[in-house]
Amino acid sequence: MSSRSVYNSWGISDLVGQLREIRHLALENRGRLDPPRLPSRKVLAQILEKVSAVLFPNRLGFPELSNESIDYYVGTTLDDLIRQLGTQIELELAFTKSLNHNSQDNGLSAADILQQFAAQLPTIRRLLDTDLQAAYEGDPAARSSDEVLVCYPGIVAITHHRIAHLLYGLGLPLIARMIAEIAHSATGIDIHPGAQIGDHFFIDHGTGVVIGETAIIGNRVRIYQAVTLGAKRFLKDESGHLLKGNLRHPIVEDDVVIYAGATILGRITIGKGSTIGGNVWLTHSVGPGSHIHQAQVRQEFFDAGGGI
Amino acid sequence: MSSRSVYNSWGISDLVGQLREIRHLALENRGRLDPPRLPSRKVLAQILEKVSAVLFPNRLGFPELSNESIDYYVGTTLDDLIRQLGTQIELELAFTKSLNHNSQDNGLSAADILQQFAAQLPTIRRLLDTDLQAAYEGDPAARSSDEVLVCYPGIVAITHHRIAHLLYGLGLPLIARMIAEIAHSATGIDIHPGAQIGDHFFIDHGTGVVIGETAIIGNRVRIYQAVTLGAKRFLKDESGHLLKGNLRHPIVEDDVVIYAGATILGRITIGKGSTIGGNVWLTHSVGPGSHIHQAQVRQEFFDAGGGI
Amino acid sequence: MSSRSVYNSWGISDLVGQLREIRHLALENRGRLDPPRLPSRKVLAQILEKVSAVLFPNRLGFPELSNESIDYYVGTTLDDLIRQLGTQIELELAFTKSLNHNSQDNGLSAADILQQFAAQLPTIRRLLDTDLQAAYEGDPAARSSDEVLVCYPGIVAITHHRIAHLLYGLGLPLIARMIAEIAHSATGIDIHPGAQIGDHFFIDHGTGVVIGETAIIGNRVRIYQAVTLGAKRFLKDESGHLLKGNLRHPIVEDDVVIYAGATILGRITIGKGSTIGGNVWLTHSVGPGSHIHQAQVRQEFFDAGGGI
Amino acid sequence: MSSRSVYNSWGISDLVGQLREIRHLALENRGRLDPPRLPSRKVLAQILEKVSAVLFPNRLGFPELSNESIDYYVGTTLDDLIRQLGTQIELELAFTKSLNHNSQDNGLSAADILQQFAAQLPTIRRLLDTDLQAAYEGDPAARSSDEVLVCYPGIVAITHHRIAHLLYGLGLPLIARMIAEIAHSATGIDIHPGAQIGDHFFIDHGTGVVIGETAIIGNRVRIYQAVTLGAKRFLKDESGHLLKGNLRHPIVEDDVVIYAGATILGRITIGKGSTIGGNVWLTHSVGPGSHIHQAQVRQEFFDAGGGI
Amino acid sequence: MSSRSVYNSWGISDLVGQLREIRHLALENRGRLDPPRLPSRKVLAQILEKVSAVLFPNRLGFPELSNESIDYYVGTTLDDLIRQLGTQIELELAFTKSLNHNSQDNGLSAADILQQFAAQLPTIRRLLDTDLQAAYEGDPAARSSDEVLVCYPGIVAITHHRIAHLLYGLGLPLIARMIAEIAHSATGIDIHPGAQIGDHFFIDHGTGVVIGETAIIGNRVRIYQAVTLGAKRFLKDESGHLLKGNLRHPIVEDDVVIYAGATILGRITIGKGSTIGGNVWLTHSVGPGSHIHQAQVRQEFFDAGGGI
Amino acid sequence: MSSRSVYNSWGISDLVGQLREIRHLALENRGRLDPPRLPSRKVLAQILEKVSAVLFPNRLGFPELSNESIDYYVGTTLDDLIRQLGTQIELELAFTKSLNHNSQDNGLSAADILQQFAAQLPTIRRLLDTDLQAAYEGDPAARSSDEVLVCYPGIVAITHHRIAHLLYGLGLPLIARMIAEIAHSATGIDIHPGAQIGDHFFIDHGTGVVIGETAIIGNRVRIYQAVTLGAKRFLKDESGHLLKGNLRHPIVEDDVVIYAGATILGRITIGKGSTIGGNVWLTHSVGPGSHIHQAQVRQEFFDAGGGI
Repeated sequence: MSSRSVYNSWGISDLVGQLREIRHLALENRGRLDPPRLPSRKVLAQILEKVSAVLFPNRLGFPELSNESIDYYVGTTLDDLIRQLGTQIELELAFTKSLNHNSQDNGLSAADILQQFAAQLPTIRRLLDTDLQAAYEGDPAARSSDEVLVCYPGIVAITHHRIAHLLYGLGLPLIARMIAEIAHSATGIDIHPGAQIGDHFFIDHGTGVVIGETAIIGNRVRIYQAVTLGAKRFLKDESGHLLKGNLRHPIVEDDVVIYAGATILGRITIGKGSTIGGNVWLTHSVGPGSHIHQAQVRQEFFDAGGGI
Repeated sequence: MSSRSVYNSWGISDLVGQLREIRHLALENRGRLDPPRLPSRKVLAQILEKVSAVLFPNRLGFPELSNESIDYYVGTTLDDLIRQLGTQIELELAFTKSLNHNSQDNGLSAADILQQFAAQLPTIRRLLDTDLQAAYEGDPAARSSDEVLVCYPGIVAITHHRIAHLLYGLGLPLIARMIAEIAHSATGIDIHPGAQIGDHFFIDHGTGVVIGETAIIGNRVRIYQAVTLGAKRFLKDESGHLLKGNLRHPIVEDDVVIYAGATILGRITIGKGSTIGGNVWLTHSVGPGSHIHQAQVRQEFFDAGGGI
Repeated sequence: MSSRSVYNSWGISDLVGQLREIRHLALENRGRLDPPRLPSRKVLAQILEKVSAVLFPNRLGFPELSNESIDYYVGTTLDDLIRQLGTQIELELAFTKSLNHNSQDNGLSAADILQQFAAQLPTIRRLLDTDLQAAYEGDPAARSSDEVLVCYPGIVAITHHRIAHLLYGLGLPLIARMIAEIAHSATGIDIHPGAQIGDHFFIDHGTGVVIGETAIIGNRVRIYQAVTLGAKRFLKDESGHLLKGNLRHPIVEDDVVIYAGATILGRITIGKGSTIGGNVWLTHSVGPGSHIHQAQVRQEFFDAGGGI
Repeated sequence: MSSRSVYNSWGISDLVGQLREIRHLALENRGRLDPPRLPSRKVLAQILEKVSAVLFPNRLGFPELSNESIDYYVGTTLDDLIRQLGTQIELELAFTKSLNHNSQDNGLSAADILQQFAAQLPTIRRLLDTDLQAAYEGDPAARSSDEVLVCYPGIVAITHHRIAHLLYGLGLPLIARMIAEIAHSATGIDIHPGAQIGDHFFIDHGTGVVIGETAIIGNRVRIYQAVTLGAKRFLKDESGHLLKGNLRHPIVEDDVVIYAGATILGRITIGKGSTIGGNVWLTHSVGPGSHIHQAQVRQEFFDAGGGI
Repeated sequence: MSSRSVYNSWGISDLVGQLREIRHLALENRGRLDPPRLPSRKVLAQILEKVSAVLFPNRLGFPELSNESIDYYVGTTLDDLIRQLGTQIELELAFTKSLNHNSQDNGLSAADILQQFAAQLPTIRRLLDTDLQAAYEGDPAARSSDEVLVCYPGIVAITHHRIAHLLYGLGLPLIARMIAEIAHSATGIDIHPGAQIGDHFFIDHGTGVVIGETAIIGNRVRIYQAVTLGAKRFLKDESGHLLKGNLRHPIVEDDVVIYAGATILGRITIGKGSTIGGNVWLTHSVGPGSHIHQAQVRQEFFDAGGGI
Repeated sequence: MSSRSVYNSWGISDLVGQLREIRHLALENRGRLDPPRLPSRKVLAQILEKVSAVLFPNRLGFPELSNESIDYYVGTTLDDLIRQLGTQIELELAFTKSLNHNSQDNGLSAADILQQFAAQLPTIRRLLDTDLQAAYEGDPAARSSDEVLVCYPGIVAITHHRIAHLLYGLGLPLIARMIAEIAHSATGIDIHPGAQIGDHFFIDHGTGVVIGETAIIGNRVRIYQAVTLGAKRFLKDESGHLLKGNLRHPIVEDDVVIYAGATILGRITIGKGSTIGGNVWLTHSVGPGSHIHQAQVRQEFFDAGGGI
């Protein structure tokens, strides 16, 4: 009884009023009459699980499926995710319109986008099969591509990326970014949905990888944890605002390997077949077949004690 | 039937008995009669979701809210989270008492703490609005502060931190730390709840960022992934035990930018308006307006093959 | 009504057919008649929660337990998790058999494995108590081992690892890896289940830590965020395929401390009691008591402006 | 493995095809192109729970509400149920239109109906307070109106009925009937939503009560289990079809008591203040103040054995 | 804290021990070594929901289905329910075997039963369409067969019965009875799964209807609430035990109507086209076209007051 | 978008205000300052499921239990339900106190009640075993007592009753009544928790059975559907209020059978071994061994047509 009274008088309506005033002020500052309605991260996470189930119905969907029933499962899961995704797309299209950024509008309706999204799912599955193959062949610890599929965070990241990149290209940068962040949260791998990535792509371990918006990655590229493909600097316009959309991230050609901790910055090109060593800091292009590593071993030995 | 018998005789009561003995021994070693009861991470995660919904009811709460209904939603969500938080606070206060660390007790009752926590929520919302503004202006890829709010892990981290820091200051270091770890798990950004952080704070990408307990960060500071604001070394007392609570982390003044991978250690000061370059290792103070970057490019080029 | 018709004609059966063809082709390429059935990550996550509850029933299980009821809770939770784990083990054993990798088969039945797994749980609890002790003593911010247990990601990681390593040794590398990845996703700490780790192990912060399959870590070792214990290079056989299973990761002897960002590669030995400084890159063995740090401070100071 | 094959070949696609043919044939027989979309019983059950919570927030909603928070709870629950009900109303209006029963259309939009529904909720609460009062005073076993509210099936039935009758009057006979059946299933009391019922209404025990569509019940009426207020016979038109909508059920005036098992059939009137005894079969009107009971005791006594 | 201690010492292990002794004694009394494992009512309820969804996918399954997606939904729901039902069937077959009632065994395997069950689903749908038609035509309050499908408890009862009767005929009397009781609980209509019921069957209101195991009901029969088709008496064998399985319930021929409360007992025949009036008590056969009603009106009138 | 605006302006705060006024008025009328807090039906339903699981752990709890694990399951389920029940008991005790009905207070604390409740659970199990035996022997359709346990609504009703009666005797009439109504809703059988019922009790079919508060039923009694053991009339005091608590329901001695639809009213005694026929109306005592049935067959035969 006494603990109940504790909560009876802490001034809830004052607090509600203060929060309302802040919200109104914030809307006013942004020149909006109404708060925007945004896609839901939780719903997108559900959709992503269903896309995985559609692409790999036995291994990531429902293992009890028989040969007779599998297509029914795929079809009904597809139907379900398309319906959910349709609602999210409509939210983003309405939000985009409310921003008055006309240049963003590519004229596609929600139905058009859904149609094109669905039509690309087989292509995504084919690409992911090449990614699985690359991981299996690239990691001495992997015993089968099945193990790669259900264990490797790099596969989670590239699956989300391939879907996010498709939606990004269809005019849904917000949903695409939310999907990328779902993968980032689960894996520590941060790939901007704008990045273009070829087939047979493999990220091992992955924590701390960052791949920027305008990066272009060729086929059969392998990347290790904590690699950054970033921008060297941000350009500003005359009034001091950041220039958006310029090409500022690296181009990585086919068959490149980049070892853990390497930092590659700016619109430079890493030539076909190159190898970039661990912890390398690289800000200019290198030709095909280059092997870059740190210039010197950076440690000394002390036999005696002493703090670090 | 046969698979059932498999599980019938694996010695469950022996195992239960062994585990009981270990528990009793562990309690004895710690001089406790009863095991402690601790706040629940799951409940705290629910509370955090509700705080987010209260602060941003349309965008992080329930998008269907009308102008007419929004205050009801805010009020009932507040009421709910305050009640849940009250129970968690009582658990921590009882736990603290059982530790006999009298110095921790600031004399605030659970009801006092709740009252002060609730009263600060508008301030937290105002600070978060400045953080959103900073992210929008600091990232060329951001199209709106709404996108920042629902996508950026740095916003997740600073939202949790501002709440955790408030509770830390109210005498709840355990709950505060648990909240910080919820954000750490979701974002890879590890901010100790003791750290003091000013307005317009922005962490981009974020994976691997570590900010220590006694760090002080000014206004308009921007930090990239894998930055460490750490302690240089841990001091020990005469008997070899770690000294707890001394000031051992950096002070970062207003308008500083720290690029990815920089490691800044010890109670040093980064002067107002400085820029710290990527991967820099810094263990002493730098004055206002300093621009620090790596002394030399650390790579060589090889045209020929060869292992890395 | 109109929005309904939008979704009525996007060609679901064509799409289902295309996906079926890709699946059949993929199976054919792998020489399989049927898709494999694999253990479930969601079920394993549930099992892990129950193992935590069995090992620490009050603190990680159900805080309301009385002295009278706790053994009942432990017993019934054990019974439940053993049953769930049994099903997952059978899935992996059948999967392994389908791979025709005979060398993987150690002849243990699911029931044998369960029996041995259960019998080792007390040992795991005892080891985890030493890990809690190490964290409490090693972190100036920790006030009690309870706080460590419910807050520290390093404890999550080592708990999962000790369970995963046990199952790995019992012939379940797939389940073991899935458990390791559950911890990796939650903490950013990536420990291969094959790694051998002694008692009193402590990882602080942890994001970005990678510990490889054949690493051996002694007792009382402390590791900070972003440390890599990796392979220097991968060996290939005459036909260009990776050699699997060779010893390629470091041995870290007792009482070693490795600070944040250090990269230690290859089958080298870090001698007992050594300290490896932050960001050090180390590819050869060092003797007992070594103190390794970066050869030079790598920054310069500029008073004038200029981009980084 | 073997049990899996059992389910692999039972002809799912044949069966799906047969069911499809039956569905198409059924639609054809009914002259429909598309199957109708109908309101959802599960959603209506949720809405009813919320209406109960709005009307009695402490006792049927959430007992932890404080004086300060209760209005927020009521407001947000109202907002929620109105939104859910809006969707259900739109489903029924579209369904009604598809039936081409123009006479059913009262021209009210979903928004109109919602507005009128909401406006009547205070009246419904006031009526239910009279029903609670009647039950408390009419049952020697009742200790408080609170006990009546949370225990008595008659209260469940009349609560559902008052809501269903309101919606019935607003042109939603299908939703109204579904709500009536939710109560029927929970209580065994079957009240058609068309029935008009005055204040202070009390049904005790209730199982088997049936009250027909055109029944009119005055104020302060009390009814026991297994009472029927039914139609005597159904009229047919010249072509042999049932005439729908004619007045065919009893009128029960104020202050009438009807004991268990009484059957009252046809458009007759039970005069004000009458008492109808248990198991009575009544098919013609009785004047005010009548006391009707069975003409004779219908049993004999046998001392000797013998089957019944 | 104090409330916690309340629950610490109420003697849980004594109580567990007493309950164990009772269980062991009960098993001993029944000559069993192990307790039986039985089908699960909760799982059967889920299966029934799925059967309804398969039979009426738009109206009782998922209203959002498009023409394109409906077959996928039907197929995957079928696959799911067949799998769940298979497990329940195996439980009953094992239970039956443990009873040593050999006569119950019809030699059908679980797979056989599933096959035959699935094959009969189209027939059940066709029968239910006739039941819907009968209800629509027989109730002046019904506006469409859709309304009947989603509202009428008689349809719930006959749907469950047709499924239960099919399983009863396939040698699963326990599952059949559990299904019948699920409907009984929801509707108050108690139909033994052994009863044979023709097409166009309609029960109105239904509460209190009881139809016995060996009853046979023709086509186009209509029954109202509280009708009993029961046994007149139970026969015993020489040792005083009940004789099981003899034909002891009525035969109701085609086109019969039985009004509310009629009690019809024993292996008698109600001739084709007969009408049985409300509350009639009938224990011998009547010929075709009979119209039976109560011999006299059973009430008197009193103008004066007086208790009943 | 347009549908959204529909819900934006329906006057939620007016409505909230009106409902608040009604609530305040209702409290005032009842002389209360605060609304009462009542036990929760949903929680009680969960508790009842757990009691069933404790009493019959394999058959109503969890069928996968092994001999080794069953006691752990029983113990932990007991612990859980006792804790939940404790909270509900405290709610009723506080509610009773707020009613100022001092006579209700038997001086037992919540802890006392829990202790006594737990101690009686073995007795309840023993009684239920006799009820199962009676059903199995009394119904020709029953094949085993297991079938009776999982199918028969009479068993659901008597299980709830035995628990409710125990709590009723311990001073918890409100919780007892709520439990009785849970069973009433599920089975159509309405037994007041005050009724005293002996062993080997069997209700067949059950819908419509009503057993009053002061009824006393001996051992080995069998009752069929729609039987009423009711009060003949309610006594009023001089001011016209109902007298509460007087003995007004029948006494049914050992070995009595009462067939369907019989109505037995008033504080009369049905002598040992009597049989009461179907639909009999009985308001005075009958001696031991009586066989009562309806005096005459109440129907006539008509060959010709004519409405009923």
